[in-house]
Amino acid sequence: MVKFSLIPREEIFFTLFEDSARNMVKTAKGLKDLIDNWNNVEARVAEITELEHEGDSITHQIMAQLNRTFVTPFDREDIALLAHTMDDITDFIHAAADAMLIYKIDQPSQRAKELADVIMQGAFEVEKAIGLLRNRSGLKNIPEHCVELNRLENMADRIYRAALAELFEDTADLARVIKWREIYDHMESATDRCEDVANVLEGVALKHA
Amino acid sequence: MVKFSLIPREEIFFTLFEDSARNMVKTAKGLKDLIDNWNNVEARVAEITELEHEGDSITHQIMAQLNRTFVTPFDREDIALLAHTMDDITDFIHAAADAMLIYKIDQPSQRAKELADVIMQGAFEVEKAIGLLRNRSGLKNIPEHCVELNRLENMADRIYRAALAELFEDTADLARVIKWREIYDHMESATDRCEDVANVLEGVALKHA
Amino acid sequence: MVKFSLIPREEIFFTLFEDSARNMVKTAKGLKDLIDNWNNVEARVAEITELEHEGDSITHQIMAQLNRTFVTPFDREDIALLAHTMDDITDFIHAAADAMLIYKIDQPSQRAKELADVIMQGAFEVEKAIGLLRNRSGLKNIPEHCVELNRLENMADRIYRAALAELFEDTADLARVIKWREIYDHMESATDRCEDVANVLEGVALKHA
Repeated sequence: MVKFSLIPREEIFFTLFEDSARNMVKTAKGLKDLIDNWNNVEARVAEITELEHEGDSITHQIMAQLNRTFVTPFDREDIALLAHTMDDITDFIHAAADAMLIYKIDQPSQRAKELADVIMQGAFEVEKAIGLLRNRSGLKNIPEHCVELNRLENMADRIYRAALAELFEDTADLARVIKWREIYDHMESATDRCEDVANVLEGVALKHA
Repeated sequence: MVKFSLIPREEIFFTLFEDSARNMVKTAKGLKDLIDNWNNVEARVAEITELEHEGDSITHQIMAQLNRTFVTPFDREDIALLAHTMDDITDFIHAAADAMLIYKIDQPSQRAKELADVIMQGAFEVEKAIGLLRNRSGLKNIPEHCVELNRLENMADRIYRAALAELFEDTADLARVIKWREIYDHMESATDRCEDVANVLEGVALKHA
Repeated sequence: MVKFSLIPREEIFFTLFEDSARNMVKTAKGLKDLIDNWNNVEARVAEITELEHEGDSITHQIMAQLNRTFVTPFDREDIALLAHTMDDITDFIHAAADAMLIYKIDQPSQRAKELADVIMQGAFEVEKAIGLLRNRSGLKNIPEHCVELNRLENMADRIYRAALAELFEDTADLARVIKWREIYDHMESATDRCEDVANVLEGVALKHA
């Protein structure tokens, strides 16, 4: 399989997945820092936007590599799905940050802080699980991270539903309600996608362990 | 193919699909009962939430079985798509019920009743069509259920558009408008997914009949 | 492969893709005309709705053909994805036009005009790129259209974000804000899907050039 290259083809996929995961963790950290500090909002969101573009570029590299590669380390459709779902996480994190900027949010809510924390933890778990793909001995430890990602998604769901209920308790400033509902939606979607990544990884582990 | 088991591998998929369809019908019935009676809302929505979790578990079993099975009764991607799309129907029905609870809806609207009826009929059609997958003689009867599912989706679409138009006719209580738009969105998405199931089933029938 | 037919099987896919692209261009033109002229709204939207149904029918034909065909001109999953993503473009254009009708919009906004222009250009680029699928010499020119589609998507994104920011600047008539946000969402999604088509086409070109 290795042709005039010191890196076997398979390795490239693992390296790119790890790049994508690392970039997604940085994006999640960017959102958490933005919400925790709430200063230099425009500059901070601009950084997150750059990370989002970097994520697009990595996803593009994975797909291009996939189209050039005949023998892949695991099923082609799992590779494509994993690449796109990790990219979705980054996109939703960016969308949440961007909405806060576009809508000129005054101050992040307590629920937003809680959701940003869960997203951060989810991003870390995804990164750890991705790091286990490289070898068979790692694969058998993937399921425990999937269990944790499921737990985090359930937690995010509870926070999200509480946030919505609270939001609609006071509809005097309805524009505010609409803006925050969209921000919460993006954040909850990010944790949903973390769970989707867990499902793909669980399948890969099952097929190859 | 059968190894120390009285149930051939293939049968397991049909059984799980039937479980998923039966669970989805129960969820649709739960939504219809909730809307028709509108009492014990919290307890009724809790039941629908449990059915939604049960749906997740069945979908998970189908995917795990798929990852363990080498020879499948029909294309792997159709099995995965069918499992996820049926799960989506259950999820959207649950999301509609859950939104009614979170938003503390006073009273269900007439349009919600109409949509719940169409969803109920759609769920029944999906269940009937799924029951025809097991054998070749059944497959040729699948298209008629797909035609009916298309008719129901068109009907749901007309009700949904009328509901939205009516909703925005009176925007004095705009919070109410926003809440109901979301509930209607979920209900319409449920009927959309019934049509998606019909499209997958039609393909399977075409390939194997 | 050719059995009692003057048209080789492969040709049918290219012809259907070209039909789908042409229909999508007509839909985009319908939206642009609707917004530029803003008269006979009901009749114009009815025409767009008919084009949307025609798009569904073409997509259905592609999928039926795919299920009947053993050897396909390029990967089955790329054919299915391309068919559905082009159909999504048509659907989102229709959804934008339909929302303008349902919500009884007074007058299209300047931002809507700008987005309709970008959608029109995107539809033309997709049509050109689709026309290059038929032969190997064309395939190598696909990437330049993908670059252009990426540029258009970035432009649409900037217009969309500016439109949202402006919309929420004045929330006195919040019902108007909600209606326009939905219309802009549909329009932006149409350009997103143009970029998705570009990604699929780029993969196909890479695999076959």
